[in-house]
Amino acid sequence: MGTRLKGVFCPHMVPLHQDGSINEEELRRYLDWLIAQGVHGLYPNGSSGEFLRFTAEERRRIIQIVCDQTAGRVPILAGAAEANVRETVRACETYLEYGATAVAIVSPYYYKLSPESVYAFFREIALNSPIDITLYNIPMFASPIDVPTVARLAEFPRITGIKDSSGDMAHMLRMIHAVRPHREDFSFLCGWEAALVPMLLMGCDGGTNGMSGVIPEFLKTMYEQTVAGNLDDARKMQMRLIEFFDAVVFSADFPEGLRSAVELRGFDMGPSRQPLSDKQVVDRGAMQRVLRCILADYGYTDQPPEGCATRTGNFPNDRVEQITRGVIDELKRRGRME
Amino acid sequence: MGTRLKGVFCPHMVPLHQDGSINEEELRRYLDWLIAQGVHGLYPNGSSGEFLRFTAEERRRIIQIVCDQTAGRVPILAGAAEANVRETVRACETYLEYGATAVAIVSPYYYKLSPESVYAFFREIALNSPIDITLYNIPMFASPIDVPTVARLAEFPRITGIKDSSGDMAHMLRMIHAVRPHREDFSFLCGWEAALVPMLLMGCDGGTNGMSGVIPEFLKTMYEQTVAGNLDDARKMQMRLIEFFDAVVFSADFPEGLRSAVELRGFDMGPSRQPLSDKQVVDRGAMQRVLRCILADYGYTDQPPEGCATRTGNFPNDRVEQITRGVIDELKRRGRME
Amino acid sequence: MGTRLKGVFCPHMVPLHQDGSINEEELRRYLDWLIAQGVHGLYPNGSSGEFLRFTAEERRRIIQIVCDQTAGRVPILAGAAEANVRETVRACETYLEYGATAVAIVSPYYYKLSPESVYAFFREIALNSPIDITLYNIPMFASPIDVPTVARLAEFPRITGIKDSSGDMAHMLRMIHAVRPHREDFSFLCGWEAALVPMLLMGCDGGTNGMSGVIPEFLKTMYEQTVAGNLDDARKMQMRLIEFFDAVVFSADFPEGLRSAVELRGFDMGPSRQPLSDKQVVDRGAMQRVLRCILADYGYTDQPPEGCATRTGNFPNDRVEQITRGVIDELKRRGRME
Amino acid sequence: MGTRLKGVFCPHMVPLHQDGSINEEELRRYLDWLIAQGVHGLYPNGSSGEFLRFTAEERRRIIQIVCDQTAGRVPILAGAAEANVRETVRACETYLEYGATAVAIVSPYYYKLSPESVYAFFREIALNSPIDITLYNIPMFASPIDVPTVARLAEFPRITGIKDSSGDMAHMLRMIHAVRPHREDFSFLCGWEAALVPMLLMGCDGGTNGMSGVIPEFLKTMYEQTVAGNLDDARKMQMRLIEFFDAVVFSADFPEGLRSAVELRGFDMGPSRQPLSDKQVVDRGAMQRVLRCILADYGYTDQPPEGCATRTGNFPNDRVEQITRGVIDELKRRGRME
Repeated sequence: MGTRLKGVFCPHMVPLHQDGSINEEELRRYLDWLIAQGVHGLYPNGSSGEFLRFTAEERRRIIQIVCDQTAGRVPILAGAAEANVRETVRACETYLEYGATAVAIVSPYYYKLSPESVYAFFREIALNSPIDITLYNIPMFASPIDVPTVARLAEFPRITGIKDSSGDMAHMLRMIHAVRPHREDFSFLCGWEAALVPMLLMGCDGGTNGMSGVIPEFLKTMYEQTVAGNLDDARKMQMRLIEFFDAVVFSADFPEGLRSAVELRGFDMGPSRQPLSDKQVVDRGAMQRVLRCILADYGYTDQPPEGCATRTGNFPNDRVEQITRGVIDELKRRGRME
Repeated sequence: MGTRLKGVFCPHMVPLHQDGSINEEELRRYLDWLIAQGVHGLYPNGSSGEFLRFTAEERRRIIQIVCDQTAGRVPILAGAAEANVRETVRACETYLEYGATAVAIVSPYYYKLSPESVYAFFREIALNSPIDITLYNIPMFASPIDVPTVARLAEFPRITGIKDSSGDMAHMLRMIHAVRPHREDFSFLCGWEAALVPMLLMGCDGGTNGMSGVIPEFLKTMYEQTVAGNLDDARKMQMRLIEFFDAVVFSADFPEGLRSAVELRGFDMGPSRQPLSDKQVVDRGAMQRVLRCILADYGYTDQPPEGCATRTGNFPNDRVEQITRGVIDELKRRGRME
Repeated sequence: MGTRLKGVFCPHMVPLHQDGSINEEELRRYLDWLIAQGVHGLYPNGSSGEFLRFTAEERRRIIQIVCDQTAGRVPILAGAAEANVRETVRACETYLEYGATAVAIVSPYYYKLSPESVYAFFREIALNSPIDITLYNIPMFASPIDVPTVARLAEFPRITGIKDSSGDMAHMLRMIHAVRPHREDFSFLCGWEAALVPMLLMGCDGGTNGMSGVIPEFLKTMYEQTVAGNLDDARKMQMRLIEFFDAVVFSADFPEGLRSAVELRGFDMGPSRQPLSDKQVVDRGAMQRVLRCILADYGYTDQPPEGCATRTGNFPNDRVEQITRGVIDELKRRGRME
Repeated sequence: MGTRLKGVFCPHMVPLHQDGSINEEELRRYLDWLIAQGVHGLYPNGSSGEFLRFTAEERRRIIQIVCDQTAGRVPILAGAAEANVRETVRACETYLEYGATAVAIVSPYYYKLSPESVYAFFREIALNSPIDITLYNIPMFASPIDVPTVARLAEFPRITGIKDSSGDMAHMLRMIHAVRPHREDFSFLCGWEAALVPMLLMGCDGGTNGMSGVIPEFLKTMYEQTVAGNLDDARKMQMRLIEFFDAVVFSADFPEGLRSAVELRGFDMGPSRQPLSDKQVVDRGAMQRVLRCILADYGYTDQPPEGCATRTGNFPNDRVEQITRGVIDELKRRGRME
């Protein structure tokens, strides 16, 4: 058994050309930036990375590019979920060849499967995969992986960790309590950055966090402050992060806010494969101004030309003010308001 | 505008070889049987047909086989959901060439999209598809399509119907009320056979019902009795169908019960692509004996050699008795009980 | 065993004085009107009647007034849920003395109890009540009563019916299928008027419907058309009712819309015991204009002085137009818009 | 403004006589024990205390007894929710007279109210209460109090804290971030002990925790270790507490497990006001043996005469073993198994 996956893994997005094809050049430039800013690992083909909106061929190509560009600088956790167990095992084989460190496999989705089926699914993969597997629990999108199922699956040496995006603290504690005494090498990664600091304080090894695709330097520092025991600083950063997290996750259908935010850091992400309605195009403009104001607050961007509302430090009010301001600006520009 | 899709469409399963590949010969034999038993149409690549567990290539091959084997005997509603809008439109083009009558496209799944995104998704497809489209609403598995969104989408001539599997009567009435005055040709299909008769009575045009893959003759008769206004007979058949529906849908993770049931009608369905645990293999044996007893009640199979519990006509009790009997038989055979 | 409860029971509201006390005079006037308009029965202390916002003493007084004023003209189904089994049984005793026909008892709420606890709760009451009991299933507000529990409880002669407000057609069919063969006298009442016609067509005996407190003549006719087999008329009335139902139920926190609507029929309902915020007072004005336009459409009220938007018959659009119109009118009056 | 409520408040149960009436003598003995074991405050008429199953008169009597018996030794947070705002305000007045420190008021339940209604409800009470108010958010049982609503309500000086039983870490952080900068005196209490330590680490002031009615000494020590910064000890205690919490909360319908557990500490709690079925009586025996084994592990009770399964430290397995053992013992005693 090896050592646990640790630190902040970035489930990065994939830049596209205007025709919707993968923009390889921009992807490579983005990966270099992420590594330079200090992410501890990369996690291509995650939910933030819209794995589902690519074809099987494209998913393979993405992993190939990431492995090639990373060239061993950081570990790579490659999303390997495919249409069925056989296709998934093939992806595992391929990604090992490409140089991935491990794979992450989401629980079966669409059909809502019982714990017994979830167990059978991962068991079959664990018995056939040539590469270490991180389970991926995201109950808002896929069949939940419950605590007894994690405990049963932790008996397979190939299964070496779990990424949990439930944001449920008690659930995480139950998993750690059930598995860690028997598997020192089993890694617990938190996929809900709104609770990342307390999760780390209670025993998590790291996170796979979409926000690290936008503000990698912030996530890295927050992680380091937490593991160094600087609780006051960590707590403040966590509080601050929630505001940005909420704006990115809840202002538009996930992960559209993330794409907008990454663009603000200077990358050409191209159009979404999920079309936007006219109304959403307007909303996106307003949202992007809000995000830019928050990022300017962090010091990562300039304020938009029209300026930002003065922040009072009062969390929801400030957010409301910013959003209102953004919407009003947009309406003005479109001539619908004086 | 054409005529509405009407009647019972069968979202049939796909028989597999032991190695997991498509058993084309058995599929063709199964399709012939379904048509001979009277299904009004076929609906390959639906949820019952496990579209998600096949690769994109396999999905195309399935439609090709179905179109070829059907040879115009019944209309074909081809499931055409792919990874994104572009891939989906390509499938639409291909399925038109193959000879499909229309396509059915499920709302985006995994990500939970807002009505605005669901609208934008179908709008884009509607503008580019060369073949008529039936929307597919299945809120337990995919992003819901709400009433105002259906009303907006009904403005596109290419969108000619909706298959709704919510089982929600009021929701169906709202949709019919909102759309039918403006689109005489718009078809409303009910995908929840537990409520099929009342849905037909209130204005639905038909159904896409997994049970029609097992007892097509029953579904066909129930539909015909209902549209002929034989309310008493229709009601009795509906009551009876619920029992079978519940056993198939709730006794195992969907659609595993359906596979077991189809086998009882004499088709070699092969192994599921979703692996079964040891416990599930046992459960499957018990469940199949229960299904066989219900089917024997209908007159469609013989009772299992060990016999069935005498039915009292008391619905949940009978079901419990049958299930208990099935489990006990299984335990006996495995030597765990005297 | 007696005869089943049949027809439309009105779960009426209780008019209050400005100081919040019960307006007995107006309540008596309202009850007379409801009976004159043809409701088949009365159902005081239901969810629409805000039973929970009255004290135990007030609930008793309400039943006393209703029994006294009705004087045998229609049957009375008295809501008898109190803090615990003992208090509930006492209410049963008292309501029998007052002259109620039967009581309705909601499943335990707040705590979410298991079927076994729900069974134990009703069993204890059934063994001690001197008056017939209708179970009340309203899963959106209280612990659900599932089909096997209904079947078990139907073994107690004192339990003679169920009022189900789930709106779930398949659930209702399962209950009827499970209970009716053994209990000819067991009554199934549908508490979700958006699906009342199909529920009646499939075997329900009637409904307990808040809308009958506003448009009793409509509900009565719709019921009679349905049981007379005039399916076309019944269907049209059902479609029309949904629009009104949605406006009343979803335009404000239930049952505030109902109070507004009853006032439009000429009754002084007084203030709610649930306070309204300033914003809600404004919203209430707008909503009441919408309701008045719908009621004018039905022919039950005049249009408001400022008129109503011309109806196109296009269901959700009309509703949106009306609501928008109502809001704009309000804003104009408050000087916030030109 | 005063000082924040801090520490562990015990939402204690109320012992009953066999006839269901309040056992005042045992209640006073129980309160003395709780205070002696170190709870920082008492919280009568909470959810654990089954406030809803008492009459209004009984609720008043409970507060009177608690205030009298406590005699100023610890602060008292008195549950004051009644049928409506007026009755609730009257309870506030009465409880101030009795000597309560503050009241806790649960959000409106049964009806699912919107944030605007929740705001209006608490606003009206805040304007009329003569005693400080703690909001009580328990979204699994009552209308949720969302972050903006808490922020709006924190503008009323009478509202001085919130007890949140959601167990949602991110939600708690959002509330603290929104309110604390403006209200230094506002207290955040966590009602979900499965996450108490991390909640305290991130800024909570204490908890209102049913488990403190069973193992007050444990909760007190865990709280003190956490605020003293002994993170390792606190973390271990938290992990250990989860196991007990789960057994108490999920082994039976809440709060029945709590009653069983309190009895094991030597108090005669009497029968529940929620009747038990025959099956539940059996289950209760099995559960109580499990709880006794856990409490024996903690050192708070002896093992049951028949002994406990040897604990391996493997969390869910141990729990399963214990539960299985308990059930088998019970079946043996009842002669159903050899």
